[in-house]
Amino acid sequence: MWKETAGETTRLPGVEAWEEEREGFRVSTVKVLSPEGARELGKPEGTYVTLMLSGLLRREESAFPRAVTALAAELRPLLPPGEGGVLVVGLGNRSITPDAVGPLCADHILVTRHLIHQAPEHFGAFRPVAALAAGVLGTTGMESGEMVAALVEKISPACVIAVDALASRSLGRVCRTVQLSDTGIVPGSGVGNDRFALNKETLGVPVIALGVPTVVDAATLCADVLAGAGLSECDPSVLGEAAAGVIVTPREIDSQVSDLSKVLGYGINQALQKDLSLADLEMLLS
Amino acid sequence: MWKETAGETTRLPGVEAWEEEREGFRVSTVKVLSPEGARELGKPEGTYVTLMLSGLLRREESAFPRAVTALAAELRPLLPPGEGGVLVVGLGNRSITPDAVGPLCADHILVTRHLIHQAPEHFGAFRPVAALAAGVLGTTGMESGEMVAALVEKISPACVIAVDALASRSLGRVCRTVQLSDTGIVPGSGVGNDRFALNKETLGVPVIALGVPTVVDAATLCADVLAGAGLSECDPSVLGEAAAGVIVTPREIDSQVSDLSKVLGYGINQALQKDLSLADLEMLLS
Amino acid sequence: MWKETAGETTRLPGVEAWEEEREGFRVSTVKVLSPEGARELGKPEGTYVTLMLSGLLRREESAFPRAVTALAAELRPLLPPGEGGVLVVGLGNRSITPDAVGPLCADHILVTRHLIHQAPEHFGAFRPVAALAAGVLGTTGMESGEMVAALVEKISPACVIAVDALASRSLGRVCRTVQLSDTGIVPGSGVGNDRFALNKETLGVPVIALGVPTVVDAATLCADVLAGAGLSECDPSVLGEAAAGVIVTPREIDSQVSDLSKVLGYGINQALQKDLSLADLEMLLS
Amino acid sequence: MWKETAGETTRLPGVEAWEEEREGFRVSTVKVLSPEGARELGKPEGTYVTLMLSGLLRREESAFPRAVTALAAELRPLLPPGEGGVLVVGLGNRSITPDAVGPLCADHILVTRHLIHQAPEHFGAFRPVAALAAGVLGTTGMESGEMVAALVEKISPACVIAVDALASRSLGRVCRTVQLSDTGIVPGSGVGNDRFALNKETLGVPVIALGVPTVVDAATLCADVLAGAGLSECDPSVLGEAAAGVIVTPREIDSQVSDLSKVLGYGINQALQKDLSLADLEMLLS
Repeated sequence: MWKETAGETTRLPGVEAWEEEREGFRVSTVKVLSPEGARELGKPEGTYVTLMLSGLLRREESAFPRAVTALAAELRPLLPPGEGGVLVVGLGNRSITPDAVGPLCADHILVTRHLIHQAPEHFGAFRPVAALAAGVLGTTGMESGEMVAALVEKISPACVIAVDALASRSLGRVCRTVQLSDTGIVPGSGVGNDRFALNKETLGVPVIALGVPTVVDAATLCADVLAGAGLSECDPSVLGEAAAGVIVTPREIDSQVSDLSKVLGYGINQALQKDLSLADLEMLLS
Repeated sequence: MWKETAGETTRLPGVEAWEEEREGFRVSTVKVLSPEGARELGKPEGTYVTLMLSGLLRREESAFPRAVTALAAELRPLLPPGEGGVLVVGLGNRSITPDAVGPLCADHILVTRHLIHQAPEHFGAFRPVAALAAGVLGTTGMESGEMVAALVEKISPACVIAVDALASRSLGRVCRTVQLSDTGIVPGSGVGNDRFALNKETLGVPVIALGVPTVVDAATLCADVLAGAGLSECDPSVLGEAAAGVIVTPREIDSQVSDLSKVLGYGINQALQKDLSLADLEMLLS
Repeated sequence: MWKETAGETTRLPGVEAWEEEREGFRVSTVKVLSPEGARELGKPEGTYVTLMLSGLLRREESAFPRAVTALAAELRPLLPPGEGGVLVVGLGNRSITPDAVGPLCADHILVTRHLIHQAPEHFGAFRPVAALAAGVLGTTGMESGEMVAALVEKISPACVIAVDALASRSLGRVCRTVQLSDTGIVPGSGVGNDRFALNKETLGVPVIALGVPTVVDAATLCADVLAGAGLSECDPSVLGEAAAGVIVTPREIDSQVSDLSKVLGYGINQALQKDLSLADLEMLLS
Repeated sequence: MWKETAGETTRLPGVEAWEEEREGFRVSTVKVLSPEGARELGKPEGTYVTLMLSGLLRREESAFPRAVTALAAELRPLLPPGEGGVLVVGLGNRSITPDAVGPLCADHILVTRHLIHQAPEHFGAFRPVAALAAGVLGTTGMESGEMVAALVEKISPACVIAVDALASRSLGRVCRTVQLSDTGIVPGSGVGNDRFALNKETLGVPVIALGVPTVVDAATLCADVLAGAGLSECDPSVLGEAAAGVIVTPREIDSQVSDLSKVLGYGINQALQKDLSLADLEMLLS
């Protein structure tokens, strides 16, 4: 979980936190720099970035290219140095709309690993990129982590970029933020239940995680409402029962998931292939 | 809105209400028989049937054919007498999952109007059926009611069957009930906002409505939770703010909408083409 | 059918024909100006324009905006004068890829008819546009011409723009040309069989047709090959038998149909809403 | 390529061939039993079965269950003995209709590998099955063979079942036959170009291949026509030029690929999970 404000974290020992603006979007960064900081915040040492894309939803002019540029700029410093190969993994279930961000993002990745060998005269200067929509345990019979581990052993990328939908504690963040981190991810923390972590320990290479909250669970929504109604302490079983098996999403979830997936895919492309413009990408991907 | 129990309505003057079981599913029927009854219940004179398909979700054996048979049996008495032509209209937005029940149902309708002329030797005994997924105002620029009225004038069916997604007051009903009525429908009472009524007054022919609740709005969910927490009176603006622009659906909304659309389509087919078995329908529709 | 070269037609009485270049694409125009010309060419008096989009396929830089601009420029003079309402109709079957150009194009139309009433302060200066993917006889039970006629009576547009897939005599034209005319269209001259004409006689308003060849029938392909092999005279039944029930399409038909539908939709939008840039359209349509 | 008739092969040394009927469908089997037979037929030692599903297209009553039963019966003897785990791989490109048979088939596979651990009380008696739609080189940057090899190393199945679309020499076979073999497969012999073989040598476990011809290339079609026209010898460059980049498919390719994928998936399920009826499968898969 992500701290709501930079202010309260910045005073902790072994933690640095700040806010800034990038391309007109608010960016909040938290760096956990020591075991003490990790204990305090309850998450591993590493960098955690939240990019607020609120303008995108309002369809402000040029919001798409600005969002892509901002995401690429935040992603680049999280990547390991060098120009080694990258495996981009889209986690989640393509046929459940709010869980489809990962697979849809994978569809927008500029895949170059094979082209570098097939047409070195055109693609020799590109960074090698492979992409996978890993599917989910229920439709493949394999943990997505298991599948990614097998491919990492086979093709030996320098790092993995994993994209997944998340559940959020806050309605205000849903479909409006991208959360980046260099500490890996546990697939299915959004809609599913998958529990095989993807990180440097399990895969042997750094894992950069990109997550987008697309659902709030009903219990969270209700807790917010109860708090708003001045009833902050209540029997959690009441919430649980009302909320079992339901999800809360924006009314426009289909189009928002589609838009965000494209921002993520193009942002990753621009971070990895530094000299490509958005127009180049459109042409290469269409 | 539908009365929660038959018991409380049955004592009203000009109203009859009862519950029964059909193919293992619970069916609740309310008949509004007089202007007095209409005033009491706040809805027009006519018949209102709620079919509870709870077993379907649990994937009980044979649930699909039983649901189709039950729906056909409840639908038949609502149709006007005779074997005149029928226009089946799927209302709602195909690209918003919980609003797609109508368009998806239209895909399962056995369309025969043209075949009766093209191949009378095979289809002469069929009831003429046309089908339309009417789209929504935002993508066609036309009210779906306007579009249906134009087609009714052109092809003069004996009645219209209109299928739509609904918003429900109750989580327990979502994706588990079909609501039938012979008094017409106002498109978009579910996810959208469309307000041109489809009924005998506007179209000139009887309109049988089939509705499936697929969403609960967040305010409803929260009110349920607050009530459960013993806080039944609260500031509605609190609810409204938390709930603006979000919807609450079952986690499995994509597959449930798909399943229900097929039950609706096949149930309509079986009600209209009385001598066709489910196997016949599968063959004709595939 | 369209004359292969302007040269041979230009000498006919009552016919004018010429070629020019627009935005880097070749444009061929034939005007049939008299009953005599109509008899000679075997098609009604009117204007017939063929836009060759060959560069689009090769993904040349800026091919998309140039194609949109060229299409809009060719379409504008075919529209009746004034700023009256327009009904854009996408003909064909969405679930048969080479027949889906019309329905997919309709998805890209900027629909404004309802907005002009809902939000005159923002949309008062827009031309009123409605759009319909009319479906096909087999899935609606209604001729698409019958459906369009009903809607034209209801909403009284100043003209209809009808978009359809075509079958071509020539492999070289498939997915590379747009054919425009102000004389209407017979739906289903492509993959389907529908035969209710859409034109000023049947609808009472001018019908501008936009057609894209997406298939060559196998007999045509074989005849081309036989001719190439020096065997121009052969038993047509041989061709017919080999070709029954099969179609010939480009290998990349799915992506080409998708690309062309977007060019058509945006070209229509730019012709109808003169002051909108491509960027404006992207924002309004997303 | 598959011999057209059993008669001509049966006289070869080291080859056995016969035809029979199964569930009303014609089945042709060729067994290559010695290196001499392999040399004669130009394919490796093993069993090659062609199941003719012609009735399915004509929508004969009960054609679907009969096709599933016939396919399961032909597949079972090709599987290695025992009840070890199986990895089903759908090869091909989901977004090119005639190449989508493999991925669509994978969607119909009853995946059990994870359930056996999660719920042994219900699934302990099931054979462990995993499934993968491997994607294509152009969208993943990885050869599908490379990806399958990685997963085989990771999850150690007893065998792989690989499903792919094929190109056929004969229009009469397209979308009407299933070709089974226990000698593996080269992905992309259909529409694509992928060349990493999947067989016991490359993967270390037996590979059972199921192929469905869905396209005829245009050169083949033309050669057939030329032969029919009595011109059997002609300049192949003529054919090549007319045929470059085009494919020939049945007009109803979308629905036929969808139907065949379901037959393949259900046939595989019934071969692997011997005690499941079709009704059981429908319930477990829906």
